[in-house]
Amino acid sequence: MSKLLIVGTVAFDAIETPFGKTDKILGGAGTYIGLSASQFNVDSAVVSIVGDDFPQDYLDLLTKNNINIDGIEVVPGGKTFFWSGRYHNDLNARDTLDTQLNVLADFNPVVPNNYKDAEIVMLGNLHPLVQLSVLEQVENPKLVILDTMNFWMDNALDDLLNVISKVDVITINDEEARQLSGEYSLAKAAKKIATMGPKYVVIKKGEHGALLFHEEEVFFAPALPLDEVFDPTGAGDTFAGGFAGYLAASSDISFENMKNAIIYGSNLASFCVEKFGTERMEKLSKDEVRSRLAAFKKLTQFEIELT
Amino acid sequence: MSKLLIVGTVAFDAIETPFGKTDKILGGAGTYIGLSASQFNVDSAVVSIVGDDFPQDYLDLLTKNNINIDGIEVVPGGKTFFWSGRYHNDLNARDTLDTQLNVLADFNPVVPNNYKDAEIVMLGNLHPLVQLSVLEQVENPKLVILDTMNFWMDNALDDLLNVISKVDVITINDEEARQLSGEYSLAKAAKKIATMGPKYVVIKKGEHGALLFHEEEVFFAPALPLDEVFDPTGAGDTFAGGFAGYLAASSDISFENMKNAIIYGSNLASFCVEKFGTERMEKLSKDEVRSRLAAFKKLTQFEIELT
Repeated sequence: MSKLLIVGTVAFDAIETPFGKTDKILGGAGTYIGLSASQFNVDSAVVSIVGDDFPQDYLDLLTKNNINIDGIEVVPGGKTFFWSGRYHNDLNARDTLDTQLNVLADFNPVVPNNYKDAEIVMLGNLHPLVQLSVLEQVENPKLVILDTMNFWMDNALDDLLNVISKVDVITINDEEARQLSGEYSLAKAAKKIATMGPKYVVIKKGEHGALLFHEEEVFFAPALPLDEVFDPTGAGDTFAGGFAGYLAASSDISFENMKNAIIYGSNLASFCVEKFGTERMEKLSKDEVRSRLAAFKKLTQFEIELT
Repeated sequence: MSKLLIVGTVAFDAIETPFGKTDKILGGAGTYIGLSASQFNVDSAVVSIVGDDFPQDYLDLLTKNNINIDGIEVVPGGKTFFWSGRYHNDLNARDTLDTQLNVLADFNPVVPNNYKDAEIVMLGNLHPLVQLSVLEQVENPKLVILDTMNFWMDNALDDLLNVISKVDVITINDEEARQLSGEYSLAKAAKKIATMGPKYVVIKKGEHGALLFHEEEVFFAPALPLDEVFDPTGAGDTFAGGFAGYLAASSDISFENMKNAIIYGSNLASFCVEKFGTERMEKLSKDEVRSRLAAFKKLTQFEIELT
């Protein structure tokens, strides 16, 4: 078992989908990554920041799931980061209705002493300078995984490229991979992104699965065809958390094991979208995970002998 | 080895992609299906219609590939069906520039006597009444596969539903599955389409692969991530031809074998898009097919033990 250090937002979300809407509920990349990674036998910690309006119940939920929260700063008198969005009818696009950075505007992440030796570091979507600061505080990680999004490509590209040059794995979605690389073909985009630093490039395609590229090799994990997608919020973070959590629990960062890791990530993301917010992930049983993993095997495994 | 009967257009195409354009070249669903199926050890025949403007070289190409053309009517003084289209920059959409039905307007398909006992029938995209006529001429097929498209949903829905009620397998793309079923979720769409007749529903997602649904089971074949897609014309027909050809060659129409069949179909389609029109399929070697099949295995096969 390796130590897993996660940096990412711990926040409030308010979500509208064609199926309903929520008030302020628990959200944030750090939250989703942490909950997903906690499905594995890992020693994980989340570095983040919240205001004192953040309910103790939410923090307790994290600790109850064996997530160390020493690195979550609670700012007295501060207000927690808030995001609100509305999904389109097909759930493949969304509009941001409101973003209130609040305490996130002055976030100086502090990695707890006990996690400076983390073997695996998961840099959740945040300003690249915050990600960089976390990276500078860890001692000698075996694997650094970066998640980011187009917002930073548009607004902080130099800082983003700097972080990208220092990580081992990058996870981004297909449109972002195209934007970052200037290549339409995802195979070409991945090769170009690999020249920027990461030895492993994971391209997330939402309902169309995820691709893992490494040198001349490529592996594909499908998304499970679901009867209903209820709320896509956090699916990408849940995927990344499953990927990082599985690698940390198995202490094996080979390409072969990364294949399993993206299958586990896809598997966990398929649960995340079944309910609003973190609801489904909070109550997920090991039996449910195992049973759906069997469905993933049936979905993709075939028997063709190469003669 | 089973006999494979194919009905579909044999035609002229003129294609524009971001990479170039062609004059009138060989095209048509029947052509692509036949060429793809000919990769397997099958006894196949194409039923179609052309004008006497259709080059003998093109007909010779089919016979050279062991495709029986007794069922291709050549209309003296008639002109061959012509389609012209222009692809958008991302190759995922296209505009039809011209459609000249010509001899296709009065197509009364005649199944050669020697193929009325075909075990496998592949109804390529055509007016549902033409597909129905072929179906009425065959004696006792083991498996009937239907390919169709949204044009017939818009213009001949009752006839289409009649054909759909009589087939075993339907192959359509994701948007068409949604249109036909009224369901956005592809899992739900497939279930609904199955109630219309077909025991097997194949949903083609282009660059995102293909799904095979049967009762409560589902199997997924990815598309190979390619550096370049040059011309998508015929990819869906090539997929269907590979699917039908493999099933015919192996004389095994079980669900397990259909999994292999959609892998083979995806494999062949990945070649089709690499050059304009039928160019790549005309020169495809068995070694190339086998080598890419190995790539498909590496792309999707993983080792997770379910404990």
